[in-house]
Amino acid sequence: MEQGPSGIWAPVLTPFDAALEPDVPRWIAHCRWLLENGCSGLAIFGTTSEANSLSVEERERMLSTLLEAGVNPLQLLPGTGCSALPDTVRLTQLAVHAGCAGVLVLPPFYYKNISEEALFRCYAAAIDRVADPRLRIYLYHIPQVSAVPIPLPVIARLRAEYPQIIAGIKDSSGDWNNTKAMLDAELPGFRVFVGSERFLLRNMESGGVGCITATANLNARAIDRLYRSWRSPEAQALQADLDKVRGVFEQHPTIAALKAALAHHRNDGNWLGLRPPLLPLAAAARAQIISSLQAAGFAL
Amino acid sequence: MEQGPSGIWAPVLTPFDAALEPDVPRWIAHCRWLLENGCSGLAIFGTTSEANSLSVEERERMLSTLLEAGVNPLQLLPGTGCSALPDTVRLTQLAVHAGCAGVLVLPPFYYKNISEEALFRCYAAAIDRVADPRLRIYLYHIPQVSAVPIPLPVIARLRAEYPQIIAGIKDSSGDWNNTKAMLDAELPGFRVFVGSERFLLRNMESGGVGCITATANLNARAIDRLYRSWRSPEAQALQADLDKVRGVFEQHPTIAALKAALAHHRNDGNWLGLRPPLLPLAAAARAQIISSLQAAGFAL
Repeated sequence: MEQGPSGIWAPVLTPFDAALEPDVPRWIAHCRWLLENGCSGLAIFGTTSEANSLSVEERERMLSTLLEAGVNPLQLLPGTGCSALPDTVRLTQLAVHAGCAGVLVLPPFYYKNISEEALFRCYAAAIDRVADPRLRIYLYHIPQVSAVPIPLPVIARLRAEYPQIIAGIKDSSGDWNNTKAMLDAELPGFRVFVGSERFLLRNMESGGVGCITATANLNARAIDRLYRSWRSPEAQALQADLDKVRGVFEQHPTIAALKAALAHHRNDGNWLGLRPPLLPLAAAARAQIISSLQAAGFAL
Repeated sequence: MEQGPSGIWAPVLTPFDAALEPDVPRWIAHCRWLLENGCSGLAIFGTTSEANSLSVEERERMLSTLLEAGVNPLQLLPGTGCSALPDTVRLTQLAVHAGCAGVLVLPPFYYKNISEEALFRCYAAAIDRVADPRLRIYLYHIPQVSAVPIPLPVIARLRAEYPQIIAGIKDSSGDWNNTKAMLDAELPGFRVFVGSERFLLRNMESGGVGCITATANLNARAIDRLYRSWRSPEAQALQADLDKVRGVFEQHPTIAALKAALAHHRNDGNWLGLRPPLLPLAAAARAQIISSLQAAGFAL
């Protein structure tokens, strides 16, 4: 297998200031904290990052500032998949030129029920336009949000056509059978990340490389412990502990819940803001999350 | 009712050149042709325009060039609703400053299952940021594509909060009961366009103002005839004729089918291109469309 990203990667939460502009210094501080607290790398501009609520220019400025701050591009897997092909190409080129480990690429997500041929052509068009052998694409399968699934035949065809470039996938479907089908397919070297730590142990047992998960914004240390000791006798118990903490966040709108927990953890109310169409939680819901996390044994 | 757009408006098809860049001169020629052939105005940058496959910069350049070409901004209703709030604000400001009749605004369409409160806040945030009393918003309800519906309570709340600015809606749901519920609601002066001429007669009989329809790219003259004579005895027969033509396009991927018919009509293969994730039709499907249109009595 070609060297590449593995372990626990966080789709980094994006803090907003009172005017709902990205708070870049606070974001960079969080990026650093994550890399020092269990994350192998940062999947900036993911769904959890509210990336599709950011303009292309905002993402460009954030990535450039993060690199200027000295973060290693090999620890970055920026989300670059936009609704419009030129935007995807522009962000992907920036990431490739910066030396990022790869890019995480949503399919175009406005038009629905597109054919497998059309989906293939979307990725092929982006790859051909970026036209850089250093490009490493991680497909981003999150059909419950994007409403545009990436079926296995398309993955296999892309991998056959672009064996070096189509490096792996983040499967956020929450459907273990879908993940397992990819792991069992004849795709040697294809790097499968699950999108939730609920599937981390099974993913590692089946040949996956790790997990890109929203909760890594708070709980990366514990998730990374399971990643490093998945062959040990304690693995099942570690998995059960992770599931308890994740369960708390899954009972609420997850991104707002993570921001509420992070605001509590940092004692910093500036983390509470979200950009429409997402909204912050009310104080009562936030308090409930904190007490549920404490009950689940999570040290805040 | 405040003066404003009515009649037949085309969501203008966007031609692409061989490199899949917008072919702006060919697009402007088509805009002019539409205004001379039955269209009261142009809903540029709609779903049929593949607007969400265009970058913000491409849309800015196209709108500016169209205005420089002398098209009357009061005959323009550009689509400006993007996934990211700053993009929506930027395009909306450009349209308002140019004096456009209004803007057609999709809700942010990446995150799904957002609350009515959140949806209200999306539009309110855009309106507050544009901060211009000349702004006229037409909500764009097309849940089968956007996967983000605009329910009536949100419309009523927006209209109550911004009575001048929330000017109307394009209902592309294809659900007449939904359209009728808006027409029957206590929203005096609210301008309801249906998104398909199949509902044009019923819309006019129930107090609507017209139709913004994909097929107006080819058939605006006939659709406009029904619009102008909906009270006449021949209205039912005109409606039946329109339905036959529309039925042909509905049997195929509609945008590709419209481009195929337009390419045939103009004897100009440059109209055939679509940007991924949409694809052109194969020659056999194109030929079938042309013969079906002729069988439906449509003069190509």
